[in-house]
Amino acid sequence: MSKVKDEKLAVKGEQELEWARINMPVLAQIRDEFVKNKPLRNIRIATCLHLEKKTGILLETLAAGGASVASCSCNPLTTDDKVAAALAKKMEVFAWAGQNDKEYYENINHVLDTKPHIIIDDGCDLIFALHKDRTELLENIKGGCEETTTGVTRLKAMERDKALKFPVIAVNNAYSKFLFDNRFGTAESTINAIMVATNKLLAGKTAVVVGYGWCGRGIADRLKGLGANVIVVEIAGTLGTDQSGFHRALEALYSGYRVMSITEAAKYGDIFITATGNKHIINSSHFPLLKNKAILSNAGHFNVEIDIPALKEMSKNAREIKDNVTEYELKDGKKIYVLSDGRLVNLARPSGQGHPIEIMDGSFGIQALSVKYVAENKLQPNVHDVPRDIDERIAELALLAQGVRLEKPTPEQVKYSQSWEEGT
Amino acid sequence: MSKVKDEKLAVKGEQELEWARINMPVLAQIRDEFVKNKPLRNIRIATCLHLEKKTGILLETLAAGGASVASCSCNPLTTDDKVAAALAKKMEVFAWAGQNDKEYYENINHVLDTKPHIIIDDGCDLIFALHKDRTELLENIKGGCEETTTGVTRLKAMERDKALKFPVIAVNNAYSKFLFDNRFGTAESTINAIMVATNKLLAGKTAVVVGYGWCGRGIADRLKGLGANVIVVEIAGTLGTDQSGFHRALEALYSGYRVMSITEAAKYGDIFITATGNKHIINSSHFPLLKNKAILSNAGHFNVEIDIPALKEMSKNAREIKDNVTEYELKDGKKIYVLSDGRLVNLARPSGQGHPIEIMDGSFGIQALSVKYVAENKLQPNVHDVPRDIDERIAELALLAQGVRLEKPTPEQVKYSQSWEEGT
Amino acid sequence: MSKVKDEKLAVKGEQELEWARINMPVLAQIRDEFVKNKPLRNIRIATCLHLEKKTGILLETLAAGGASVASCSCNPLTTDDKVAAALAKKMEVFAWAGQNDKEYYENINHVLDTKPHIIIDDGCDLIFALHKDRTELLENIKGGCEETTTGVTRLKAMERDKALKFPVIAVNNAYSKFLFDNRFGTAESTINAIMVATNKLLAGKTAVVVGYGWCGRGIADRLKGLGANVIVVEIAGTLGTDQSGFHRALEALYSGYRVMSITEAAKYGDIFITATGNKHIINSSHFPLLKNKAILSNAGHFNVEIDIPALKEMSKNAREIKDNVTEYELKDGKKIYVLSDGRLVNLARPSGQGHPIEIMDGSFGIQALSVKYVAENKLQPNVHDVPRDIDERIAELALLAQGVRLEKPTPEQVKYSQSWEEGT
Amino acid sequence: MSKVKDEKLAVKGEQELEWARINMPVLAQIRDEFVKNKPLRNIRIATCLHLEKKTGILLETLAAGGASVASCSCNPLTTDDKVAAALAKKMEVFAWAGQNDKEYYENINHVLDTKPHIIIDDGCDLIFALHKDRTELLENIKGGCEETTTGVTRLKAMERDKALKFPVIAVNNAYSKFLFDNRFGTAESTINAIMVATNKLLAGKTAVVVGYGWCGRGIADRLKGLGANVIVVEIAGTLGTDQSGFHRALEALYSGYRVMSITEAAKYGDIFITATGNKHIINSSHFPLLKNKAILSNAGHFNVEIDIPALKEMSKNAREIKDNVTEYELKDGKKIYVLSDGRLVNLARPSGQGHPIEIMDGSFGIQALSVKYVAENKLQPNVHDVPRDIDERIAELALLAQGVRLEKPTPEQVKYSQSWEEGT
Repeated sequence: MSKVKDEKLAVKGEQELEWARINMPVLAQIRDEFVKNKPLRNIRIATCLHLEKKTGILLETLAAGGASVASCSCNPLTTDDKVAAALAKKMEVFAWAGQNDKEYYENINHVLDTKPHIIIDDGCDLIFALHKDRTELLENIKGGCEETTTGVTRLKAMERDKALKFPVIAVNNAYSKFLFDNRFGTAESTINAIMVATNKLLAGKTAVVVGYGWCGRGIADRLKGLGANVIVVEIAGTLGTDQSGFHRALEALYSGYRVMSITEAAKYGDIFITATGNKHIINSSHFPLLKNKAILSNAGHFNVEIDIPALKEMSKNAREIKDNVTEYELKDGKKIYVLSDGRLVNLARPSGQGHPIEIMDGSFGIQALSVKYVAENKLQPNVHDVPRDIDERIAELALLAQGVRLEKPTPEQVKYSQSWEEGT
Repeated sequence: MSKVKDEKLAVKGEQELEWARINMPVLAQIRDEFVKNKPLRNIRIATCLHLEKKTGILLETLAAGGASVASCSCNPLTTDDKVAAALAKKMEVFAWAGQNDKEYYENINHVLDTKPHIIIDDGCDLIFALHKDRTELLENIKGGCEETTTGVTRLKAMERDKALKFPVIAVNNAYSKFLFDNRFGTAESTINAIMVATNKLLAGKTAVVVGYGWCGRGIADRLKGLGANVIVVEIAGTLGTDQSGFHRALEALYSGYRVMSITEAAKYGDIFITATGNKHIINSSHFPLLKNKAILSNAGHFNVEIDIPALKEMSKNAREIKDNVTEYELKDGKKIYVLSDGRLVNLARPSGQGHPIEIMDGSFGIQALSVKYVAENKLQPNVHDVPRDIDERIAELALLAQGVRLEKPTPEQVKYSQSWEEGT
Repeated sequence: MSKVKDEKLAVKGEQELEWARINMPVLAQIRDEFVKNKPLRNIRIATCLHLEKKTGILLETLAAGGASVASCSCNPLTTDDKVAAALAKKMEVFAWAGQNDKEYYENINHVLDTKPHIIIDDGCDLIFALHKDRTELLENIKGGCEETTTGVTRLKAMERDKALKFPVIAVNNAYSKFLFDNRFGTAESTINAIMVATNKLLAGKTAVVVGYGWCGRGIADRLKGLGANVIVVEIAGTLGTDQSGFHRALEALYSGYRVMSITEAAKYGDIFITATGNKHIINSSHFPLLKNKAILSNAGHFNVEIDIPALKEMSKNAREIKDNVTEYELKDGKKIYVLSDGRLVNLARPSGQGHPIEIMDGSFGIQALSVKYVAENKLQPNVHDVPRDIDERIAELALLAQGVRLEKPTPEQVKYSQSWEEGT
Repeated sequence: MSKVKDEKLAVKGEQELEWARINMPVLAQIRDEFVKNKPLRNIRIATCLHLEKKTGILLETLAAGGASVASCSCNPLTTDDKVAAALAKKMEVFAWAGQNDKEYYENINHVLDTKPHIIIDDGCDLIFALHKDRTELLENIKGGCEETTTGVTRLKAMERDKALKFPVIAVNNAYSKFLFDNRFGTAESTINAIMVATNKLLAGKTAVVVGYGWCGRGIADRLKGLGANVIVVEIAGTLGTDQSGFHRALEALYSGYRVMSITEAAKYGDIFITATGNKHIINSSHFPLLKNKAILSNAGHFNVEIDIPALKEMSKNAREIKDNVTEYELKDGKKIYVLSDGRLVNLARPSGQGHPIEIMDGSFGIQALSVKYVAENKLQPNVHDVPRDIDERIAELALLAQGVRLEKPTPEQVKYSQSWEEGT
């Protein structure tokens, strides 16, 4: 009963899945345990994730644990149709690249129709649909897991407003997730997607990274590593509960970047990458300041960071000049290029193929063990941290997969770390 | 009634102070306010800090706020005798480079004899002395501030054991402190001191950084930036309340470093830098594994990270071969070089001159405003965070001093950051 | 009379050409001059180049100068069939991706059948065919241009053996070519192609770069910039007229890389990239030493650097596991992955899309002006350097395109640089 | 008959020499051979070099080969008086830090009075004195060696003007010299000296590197590695026979630096480092553009790169504010800080201690073997390259000292590198 673009793509999709499977040793180990112990027997899981090869291996792993799984995509552009076709042979899948808004929400409802016990979400659209339109399903829900910074921010707001009806594990907040997925995964995949979409040289370009959270830090660092001249944009003050923009700005400065406001940076950038989790960061007040042929792209979860409706309005002409590249011609003749309609550039097909496999091996390892944790425990309807032991175990497995074996501290060292009487 | 090495050094010391003063714009701004409002009128302050030119400007600033100040050094080797001589003309100073253990504790007691109301400590030796030997002074104490990771760890242990008798601001834990001082300050000053002490090339060397906290991260990054091939050592597990060694190890790995245990790294390193805050990290089990001519140094607060007594025991010969470099000849003829007796290499004279001025401008800005906060508020006898507004303000002042002006988020953006209903 | 894969791809191909045209300001300026002055009127040009969008703009430029142009590809795998289809509407094209050896040489002969006056070659296959099989055409040839290090090395050997029958400009040896194309272009495009082919994380990987010429230097630097741990392999001694392997090895060491022989590095690498211009660098003596799942790729001109016939021989199984990735299973069960059959990984389709556009804008700017120079001058049948003024002009145009304007030295400075009497 | 600052410093100086000796394995190997074969028996050598600990080991090595050696310093500020005192116990030395111009030339004449057979020069002052004022000594001279880019440029001008009277080996032009000494040695030592002189943070500073030759490249790279934001200044055109400024500028741009003219960069820099080998690069037209508290320093051989006489003229006030730092107060109150009077900042005492030991081990290894080569061969009075085998041997010895062993190419590979018939 799946709905995918083209079932005949399944052969190519299975190749992709195989390549991912070969390169995901953390999930392989968890899958072995799941096969043996079936911790998810009789559990129905609904997932709303970027549906591509690495996600496929997570879904396989959950199924190997005994679960029945139904999946839609958390983004209209990011489904790998080959992989979706291959997965549709094994489980329920409702996803294709290029869904319109109506189809997007229909697919969310299709997976909810399976009456899930556990939810895996990426950006909170599934969880939000449950709370708004499908409240009849809430009583079945044991809990959920959320993958992104953006989603966790929404959940924290729901928790604060006492609106959250079931427990959710903030997978994003595990060290093994945000330190690696947000920082290293987003960086490589974003840069790769920009290279594929544009075939332009990054060396020598003035690249403006807007937002210096973990995603922005990673992107800035890798752009610098490729020879770009990076400008970091931060804000005066704080949004959310995190560090101040002042601290981030100072960190960026001491890391060798120029730091300025978006209004100032608008004049200098050859290429812009937004990673703020906020809205209309580059907007109608900035478009007139941009250089001719400036390139705009977004690495944040939602496609609101660049105000594309405003850009359209200000343009006399817009056309898709090639895959993933839209040209906007402003009234003065200046041209602005937007990648992947301002959606997640690292995931939007065909240029984007999502995070590197090893990164998702870690992130999805946490997902798999967190789902098991939700299945086995009765939790309050709050936002929960990933249990420390799960978080540590994933890091340890990832290290072992790379051949890194560490030593424990000595008893003397443990004791020293707890005492306060030993001084100069 | 001060005690310093040589009062005639005061002229040179005043030059050093002037250079620091020129380069500390954050403290300059605070000093202007202090001069006007005298927030520390009638307050006696005892400080136990590395006594060199930047510290001098903090002490001046406190005095400008109306305080009377008495100072000793928090480390037997790190006093700049020129600066101490210059300061002794303005306030009570009990410090010189090369104190023995007895003198060190005598000087601590000299500053306590001034019956202070507020304490500024670096490593907790002053606070510990108050709690152990000078309990009669506790009733006068309004509170204190602690500068280092090591000190805060000790204080947290005291708090946990309900042993702490007055409130202490954990200056170290302010973002504006640990992100900048520990990471960027320690890195540059450590590398500079090693260069001065050894005149050896860092490019091409295998450098082993032991401990990947903020100090270790900074040191590793700068060594890499200078062309060293860096190995990071971490542990399997966690000491204290911080991140797991597994997470740090994985972060180091993804940052391009080789990662291994100290036992394995011992065989490869040309130069070792410890920054763990723990004890006997390089010890008698590792010395036999080292390469001939390996260099050992420490950037952690106390001189316990390298087990020098054990090294002495295992050596047939030890001599100071030049300033800050001691040669140990093991029984098999292999030679090991230890910098600055395993004390804080970035501060030990004459090679070390401490953190760069701008870094201490920030850290001491927090100190100055935290002292004012302690003076003006009645706090519980716990370990307190630096108030958020102080922490932000220092970062903002440091940015302004570099010409960086940021913009506030728009009202729309503030609203977006608090809502949870806006999705794909 | 062109032969391409599918003429219907021309629409997509024209989009690609347009994007390249927008981003090649150096060629745009030259094209403007060519349109005006028609320096190539009545000249027939045969080209043997990687046939993709940037090359298309060079060919357009030559045609704009009055030339008639016929093109084949210098590599069986690297033609962009979309671009070839679009170009075939404007000029003679004999190229598609996936030619077999017979077709490859047939296409070379097709372009030679146009009786060219000037040759543009990449790897010397066209020039060599002229000297070996099509000697009847030599009398028409005014001269040629060669793009690569590999080709120039072959030409120098021909010149030394007095076998070269017409003048060839060693475009590769222009500063504006080898410093930028080999170093910066190869690096970005190679890394991008590996990311696309594998979707694997580069951060944390042990990457072995074999050969530390300009290509290898660039690749190593960018891999490091992306968080890989890089090992550089060099040889004891010198091949060709260039620097010694000892000097390159020492440079690599001081740049922070581990340096070793291929035999030693074979044991450590997760991914290998050859860039030596030589043969069987990774061969049957190394395959047994590799780690399971090691990835082998080549960035050198010819597909001889990895001894793939030997690898096949040693394997019990070989299969294309996904686009551009072939899996070899050795007899002991170990798996080795080879990218793009050991051909130029940055150009082999579909993962590779060749150098970034700006890089080829520079390289092809030199080609265009060198062709003009050959057309306008009578040269001896030797290997010639690109005239200094062409070389400088391209660099200047590339800088201007990025908004960089430099100042001339003062007369006093010019004088100082020529005098020897001014001392301490 | 030596003249040094203070003979009592010899004990400290001998310590410094011992530390250098321990860390110079290349010279150690050469010294062993010299002791055995005495290739310099009956040769008198005059040297004009920065007289510090590494130079001392070269002089010892020459003496070990049988030579009698007399030494002065090639710079008025760079003598290490401790080392000079220690050396004066073993050979003739005429050098101290802080010589005035008259003393400087007297000392040059003192060493010439020894009637040398072979000259080792650094900047050509000795060679120039021989050609101008001490022509009576020319007949004794077998030849010389020159250490620096600056000196070789002077020699090439002399050769062009047919003014050179004896053969000189351009030690600077050996790969093992300029690639390592100029690039890696200058970089580390310059940065170290600036850190010592200023104790300022490099992270976050806008650093302007003027001149992007090997020295400038190295300095820029290491500054970037320490978190500075680097601007590179180059010229439109070429001085001397080297690459165009356009090429260097483009290389700098693609390496991630901002590139501009000195007039533009003057406005942005917090710290400037000149490394051009030319004159008045920063001059009276730039001083008014500088930011308040800008720091100027020079890493080029002569103190002419910053026009200090003009700066003095434009200032209402000048004073040495601390060791190696002079403050100039312009008429508008702006303050400019010049390090080490614009002389070689990495060598000027006390902040500078010259190149890292390992670098000089390589450079002086070439010197020692080149002196032997001059002694053993009769050469024409031209500028000669260092013989290829010497150049390779030094690199090989330096690699072996770091434990790097390379493999020879296979016979098949040697053959392949010489053939031109093998194609696609």
